[in-house]
Amino acid sequence: MNPIQDLQLRIDEAFSEIRFPSAPADLYNPITYTLGLGGKRLRPLLVLASCQMFGGDIADAINPAIGIELFHNFTLLHDDIMDAAPLRRGKETVYKKWNSNVAILAGDTMFALANKYMLRTRPQAISQVIELFNQTAIEVCEGQQYDMDYEKQQHVSIPDYIEMIRLKTAVLLAASLKTGAIIAGAGSADCNYIYNFGIHIGLAFQLKDDLLDVYGVQEKFGKVSGGDIIAGKKTYLYLKALEAAGAQTETFRHLYVTPDADNNQKVMKVKAFFNQLNIENFTRELIDDYYQQAMNDLSSISLSGEAMEEMKDYTAGLMEREN
Amino acid sequence: MNPIQDLQLRIDEAFSEIRFPSAPADLYNPITYTLGLGGKRLRPLLVLASCQMFGGDIADAINPAIGIELFHNFTLLHDDIMDAAPLRRGKETVYKKWNSNVAILAGDTMFALANKYMLRTRPQAISQVIELFNQTAIEVCEGQQYDMDYEKQQHVSIPDYIEMIRLKTAVLLAASLKTGAIIAGAGSADCNYIYNFGIHIGLAFQLKDDLLDVYGVQEKFGKVSGGDIIAGKKTYLYLKALEAAGAQTETFRHLYVTPDADNNQKVMKVKAFFNQLNIENFTRELIDDYYQQAMNDLSSISLSGEAMEEMKDYTAGLMEREN
Repeated sequence: MNPIQDLQLRIDEAFSEIRFPSAPADLYNPITYTLGLGGKRLRPLLVLASCQMFGGDIADAINPAIGIELFHNFTLLHDDIMDAAPLRRGKETVYKKWNSNVAILAGDTMFALANKYMLRTRPQAISQVIELFNQTAIEVCEGQQYDMDYEKQQHVSIPDYIEMIRLKTAVLLAASLKTGAIIAGAGSADCNYIYNFGIHIGLAFQLKDDLLDVYGVQEKFGKVSGGDIIAGKKTYLYLKALEAAGAQTETFRHLYVTPDADNNQKVMKVKAFFNQLNIENFTRELIDDYYQQAMNDLSSISLSGEAMEEMKDYTAGLMEREN
Repeated sequence: MNPIQDLQLRIDEAFSEIRFPSAPADLYNPITYTLGLGGKRLRPLLVLASCQMFGGDIADAINPAIGIELFHNFTLLHDDIMDAAPLRRGKETVYKKWNSNVAILAGDTMFALANKYMLRTRPQAISQVIELFNQTAIEVCEGQQYDMDYEKQQHVSIPDYIEMIRLKTAVLLAASLKTGAIIAGAGSADCNYIYNFGIHIGLAFQLKDDLLDVYGVQEKFGKVSGGDIIAGKKTYLYLKALEAAGAQTETFRHLYVTPDADNNQKVMKVKAFFNQLNIENFTRELIDDYYQQAMNDLSSISLSGEAMEEMKDYTAGLMEREN
């Protein structure tokens, strides 16, 4: 049994060994650049940790783990074009540093590369792994489309929002875990439990992200407090506040969606509304709900508690962050 | 043995049965729209014809055939953004009709869908089919990158140009044929022969396209004579003329790359140069070379001549077009 830190090292090592062709330069340099920006590599870690938990050989899972991270980075490349985002992990996005054509084509290539990495596993697992991977890719695209739709749409319900973040964020975490389980040869019931665990953990993560944008401890590098408020982004906190605001609904909506010359002023006003409506508590309760559901999913798996302790500790650690 | 026309019907029927989800509308409507534009469906036909030629069951090949066509249409969606192309098959491109974000995301979804279709074949063929498919996708992206690079680059050699069209066009035709062969369980030598046949036929097709833009019979709907000349596109004819022009090289280059207020005038002047340098003959000779190589590839395959007659007739028919 390798501790999580060892799995992380294994992943970092695997990424450091990847080399792409030198030509055409405008196709491969952006890919090397993107992977060089690093990131937490959370998804490949979930692939390996799940594979190990179900008694599989992580050597069979390392390439699909890389494939999922390549896919994740491909979606960031294309999302950054669609969102006109200038920065990613504190560095220029590919679309800004080169141009959008380069970001489109490098992204497409990464998706094809990702599929090739997914193939490098136990032959018996290939069909299921590739099916899950591409089904998940479709769902992630659906999530991105809903996200863009909701930016333009005035009324978004909380269930619609939850479904959007399920598609955009949670399914890939869930698929990472299930990929590890499939490779380890886990039974289909266990594969579904670990998938649901990933969905619930993913929803909890995303809601925590929404929460920390407003209520996070402000020490984290590169993260501006209230960025979602300044941008008027429809987060869970905003939608919940709209629901709770009663007679003040329209006043609040107007305040939230209207840009303010003084960003701090806007953040403070919105935060005062959130405080008055007890939004932090509502959000923490919902996060806790999903977290408890995740723990239930985990406890349904037919393994000894011991094998799952590390997964539990690791995800608990991820949930504890307050910045 | 089904004649080619029956295979064509089978493909049209399969496409007419495809239904996508209704939401999110901006994700799936562009996909339905794109597939509704039709096209020759040449690539799926090659998948089925090759599968049949090698004695396979075309029921095992129909879904991968759809997958390859979905992939091809995905590349058109993204290429049209990169090339800022307003029209495709006489209709507005997705990027024009909606916007580039829609075209990016619908394209990504089509690529994922394509991979799912590739899986629906004989289990023993899956790994090889998916590997070939995604390797080919990477090469098609490389071809598109070289194409864009060469538009900006002053000096492009003829071998560079041939390599670009090999990647951008020929490898997908070759992969279509090889996919059918793999599904039919053909041996690896035969798989390679049919792949090489596809490469040589693909090069011959693309060069014929270059040729007919200038020397085609002008009856075809939607095709303007000399479009490549008007756009100053670096085609084989242009590169060969540069090579043959001797002391007139710079005069000719200037004429070709400089837009002219009078398009007809420019086409006539360039064509006069081509005529003087015997470019039509050089091009027809090279096309014939590749066609002969394709016939050699075909004759190396370990099948009776009879099984291959239809493939030979079909490709000969495709080569005969003069508009």
